[in-house]
Amino acid sequence: MLELIAPLVVPNSTKIVLLSLDGLAGLPRPETKRSELETARLPHLHALAAESACGLIIHVAPGITPGSGPGHLGLFGYDPLRYRVGRGVLEALGIEFDLRPGDVAARGNFCTVDDRGLITDRRAGRIPTDVCVRLTDRLRAIRLSGADLFVEPVKEHRFVLVLRGGSLSGRLSETDPQALGTAPLPARPLDPAAAPTADLVNRFVGEARGLLADAAPANMVLLRGFDRLPELPGFPATFGLRAAAVAAYPMYRGLAKLVGMEVLKTGAGFADEMATLRQHWEAYDFFFLHYKDTDKAGEDGDFDGKVAALERLDAFVPEIRALEPDVLVVTGDHASPAVLRGHGWQPVPVLIWSRYCGADPVTTFTERACALGTLGLLPAHHLMPLVLANALRLTKFGA
Amino acid sequence: MLELIAPLVVPNSTKIVLLSLDGLAGLPRPETKRSELETARLPHLHALAAESACGLIIHVAPGITPGSGPGHLGLFGYDPLRYRVGRGVLEALGIEFDLRPGDVAARGNFCTVDDRGLITDRRAGRIPTDVCVRLTDRLRAIRLSGADLFVEPVKEHRFVLVLRGGSLSGRLSETDPQALGTAPLPARPLDPAAAPTADLVNRFVGEARGLLADAAPANMVLLRGFDRLPELPGFPATFGLRAAAVAAYPMYRGLAKLVGMEVLKTGAGFADEMATLRQHWEAYDFFFLHYKDTDKAGEDGDFDGKVAALERLDAFVPEIRALEPDVLVVTGDHASPAVLRGHGWQPVPVLIWSRYCGADPVTTFTERACALGTLGLLPAHHLMPLVLANALRLTKFGA
Repeated sequence: MLELIAPLVVPNSTKIVLLSLDGLAGLPRPETKRSELETARLPHLHALAAESACGLIIHVAPGITPGSGPGHLGLFGYDPLRYRVGRGVLEALGIEFDLRPGDVAARGNFCTVDDRGLITDRRAGRIPTDVCVRLTDRLRAIRLSGADLFVEPVKEHRFVLVLRGGSLSGRLSETDPQALGTAPLPARPLDPAAAPTADLVNRFVGEARGLLADAAPANMVLLRGFDRLPELPGFPATFGLRAAAVAAYPMYRGLAKLVGMEVLKTGAGFADEMATLRQHWEAYDFFFLHYKDTDKAGEDGDFDGKVAALERLDAFVPEIRALEPDVLVVTGDHASPAVLRGHGWQPVPVLIWSRYCGADPVTTFTERACALGTLGLLPAHHLMPLVLANALRLTKFGA
Repeated sequence: MLELIAPLVVPNSTKIVLLSLDGLAGLPRPETKRSELETARLPHLHALAAESACGLIIHVAPGITPGSGPGHLGLFGYDPLRYRVGRGVLEALGIEFDLRPGDVAARGNFCTVDDRGLITDRRAGRIPTDVCVRLTDRLRAIRLSGADLFVEPVKEHRFVLVLRGGSLSGRLSETDPQALGTAPLPARPLDPAAAPTADLVNRFVGEARGLLADAAPANMVLLRGFDRLPELPGFPATFGLRAAAVAAYPMYRGLAKLVGMEVLKTGAGFADEMATLRQHWEAYDFFFLHYKDTDKAGEDGDFDGKVAALERLDAFVPEIRALEPDVLVVTGDHASPAVLRGHGWQPVPVLIWSRYCGADPVTTFTERACALGTLGLLPAHHLMPLVLANALRLTKFGA
């Protein structure tokens, strides 16, 4: 798809807003048989849907529940089955670590081992985050010939390890045996080219063991989810867009950075994000605007909270439209139905508004209504070509 | 798809019923412009559809009429274009022959040759089945060094030949020239590794010619559709399901066995199948429940018969729901429109009911209504991931 699109891109001065309502899609509450979207009062979204082309998005494949990584990569135009982002890389993106091409990242746990070196607690009693910060500081003293090393605290017992330099490989087995009463495993190369990286990791672990000897309960480390930063074709070059991300949460900032968007400094609330959008309106062609509250409420199983989050967002829609984007897209990265208390596999409503989006029968922005839209049931990575087309930024294919 | 799904499977104790109404989809009768599903009185199926996610299934590709093999393999989660089951294997499955990995099967015809050995009747005047049984008995006397041999009667002039042992190949040309006035052809190897198997087959045919010399009109054999039993990833292991098939007809029992389901002993009618389902309800997670009458009426061109078959099935729906499956799927393996008097390429209605199937606008279980459902137009092999998701048996993809 990207290879098809890139040569068709033509420049112009149109402006595009992709509004991602995290965890947008929901499920009916059994008592009312109405979903969060069907329960909320959403005059502006429904009015927008009535003027838009609507449909439902599938991010990975039918029945597959997307994580935030694959969910957003799909919206950005990348097939999430082709461009995979491993656990370590996502963890690094989640703390907005400045990952570079070739870096290998792993998720780390501080853990507890007994005097024979056998694991007694895989999470070191969930040490407080400030202890984690102090101990990662200690591990930064480790020097490895052949690679730079970064150790970054995350939360409680979790940290991120990043190796940089030389030709590193992420094809390593995990050191976490995922069991108690057994010793941490050595990292093994999963293909021959990964042997030097395995060696570096094992030297790091060996030195960490010494440096943490007196730090019980956090007296050892476990590493998993080794992965290299994937090489993605850059979003701005592929789609010919000066692209900016307006997102308060680190994970989404990290994902936008991964594809080469400019990540704008912004405040914590959506009103702050709106101010950031207005402030940079002239400087970019494409804005990825992220709204987190819908997902948070869905993951908490808070149906009413998700309804309220949708209604709060709805009130901002006129402000976005007042900027007069040429294309306005509203969708989400995955479902987070309150009744599931987590991500879901359900397809996610999408609307594309532009002057050229076409006649469409949908007049409300709900799961049920969007099923009848002219966009149909759409793989997420087919959205960007449609968006560019609506911005008149694609020339025809074939003469 | 199978490679994507298997690592995401998580165990739980949910129960799933996949009800396959053979040849489900139909076409409008010209006089009423209503299909079989639109003509039948189906209160229970329509009520179920109103609570379900609905759509239309395409088993192979648009415009392609599926045989029963590809139709059911698709429903079981296998892409029928990737996993092909040859004519000989299907014929063996159709008589519930215990095919084993490595076996090569062919469909055989008894035929008539004249005294110069030229074919005068490719079907030996459709000899009665009891003659077929007697003659296959005679052919069982043949001994081939290097392989075990099985010759099984089917119906009238048809039989199945199975070779077992050593490293056999199904890459053989057919001996049936599909023309009269010409001699049966030798089996030729279609790749070099198949030469020994071709030799075995030709020795069998040579001996058969001698043994049948006095058996006119069935004095010779023709063989076609040579194929090896395909190696399929096992259904129970791939999907993490204790899976049972409840099907009275041999072909569907054979297909279920091919993918590794437990095939339960059952009686000839659907009431017997229901009794079998109830009896084994506790022992399995997944039940493939097969209903044949819809297809039989469709293939006979009996529109009213198909309507009646649908109505008879509808009356059983409450009994299935009374078992309280966590996921109930109703669909079919292909269309058998009465106006076509055979299988058709038309997409087949599907409904998935679960507590998490989502809001969906469809309220009747017909071809026309299901076109508007949230499942959209779905490749058959995408159904199983959706079914597992609805059973909460899949974890998310990517973090």
